[in-house]
Amino acid sequence: MSNAISSPPAMRGPADHDVRAQIVVAATEHFSRYGYEKTTVSDLAKAIGFSKAYIYKFFESKQAIGEMICANCLREIGADIRAAVDGADRPPEKLRRMFKAIVDSSLRLFSQDRKLYEIAISAASERWQSAIAHEECIRQLLVEVLKQGRESGDFERKTPIDEMAAAIYLVMHPYINPLMLQHSFAHTDQAPVQLSGLVLRSLSP
Amino acid sequence: MSNAISSPPAMRGPADHDVRAQIVVAATEHFSRYGYEKTTVSDLAKAIGFSKAYIYKFFESKQAIGEMICANCLREIGADIRAAVDGADRPPEKLRRMFKAIVDSSLRLFSQDRKLYEIAISAASERWQSAIAHEECIRQLLVEVLKQGRESGDFERKTPIDEMAAAIYLVMHPYINPLMLQHSFAHTDQAPVQLSGLVLRSLSP
Repeated sequence: MSNAISSPPAMRGPADHDVRAQIVVAATEHFSRYGYEKTTVSDLAKAIGFSKAYIYKFFESKQAIGEMICANCLREIGADIRAAVDGADRPPEKLRRMFKAIVDSSLRLFSQDRKLYEIAISAASERWQSAIAHEECIRQLLVEVLKQGRESGDFERKTPIDEMAAAIYLVMHPYINPLMLQHSFAHTDQAPVQLSGLVLRSLSP
Repeated sequence: MSNAISSPPAMRGPADHDVRAQIVVAATEHFSRYGYEKTTVSDLAKAIGFSKAYIYKFFESKQAIGEMICANCLREIGADIRAAVDGADRPPEKLRRMFKAIVDSSLRLFSQDRKLYEIAISAASERWQSAIAHEECIRQLLVEVLKQGRESGDFERKTPIDEMAAAIYLVMHPYINPLMLQHSFAHTDQAPVQLSGLVLRSLSP
């Protein structure tokens, strides 16, 4: 693209950072009103009152803006899940809350802001960096809880922890991935209790 | 629809049954070449060499034809899964094979005939009778295996069997439902072994 002038990140000062944040705020509002897929960078530029070239100075594509919005969104969900886990003392209860928080926070994103959910769908189907990082973050939290439960004697220690974590992550995955979550709505009421019950039975020493 | 003349099923003789089968065979071929969504009953009539009114004498809509194709397809998958379960002696191995057969047979449908898979997608998203019956059939098979394992002493008996079955079914669901399966391809290699391992640990007495 001829007007895609972008300076290297190292050259950006705090003022640039402010402009980027301003674009992200305006784009979030615009996307959540008109949808991510249907909006072009030209639409966005017109809505914000910037030239298209000026936006391209800060973001190399619409996806780069979407990535940042999505990363903010997923960071919030990640923080919610961690807070839920940290709010419990014992590893079994931590795991129970983790299942519940994953389903609740994903559903909240979906029902609060259907248009922003569209960005999460793109992120998941195109494997954006922010989506990969989010999944990795949940996987690490899971391993942490499993380790704590093995140390406290709440969880069995015969099964290799990697195998254990991979299997439990597979059970969580349909509720983490927004593409799959939209086909699981019929089960979101019961799923956290039923699945965490099954997983905890599988972990009993 | 003015040309949707359909006689009550009780009035249909064996000859009608043959014509219905003939329409289903021709429609299966046509759908698998041109796709289900894009084909209209007029296209179908033209391809088979019947009048549209004649087809409507036997099927009230395109979906009714799709239902029958889908039902045949799902009956085959169901038979594969049951054969896999019947092929093992002990309930734990039955459960292991059930997971594997669910993933394998669904993947086979997907890779063999992408266009027919489209019908399965419609069936799942619009909750056709054939899709509901298929899910119910797998759920019943699961309950059977669980009962056998409780009787043989391979599985624990403390957890109510309904709760046990519902949770395990939830774990299987992303691989049964074609809408979800298409987002699980990254995991289909490992999933049967990892998930059946987890489920069997949860069932240990």
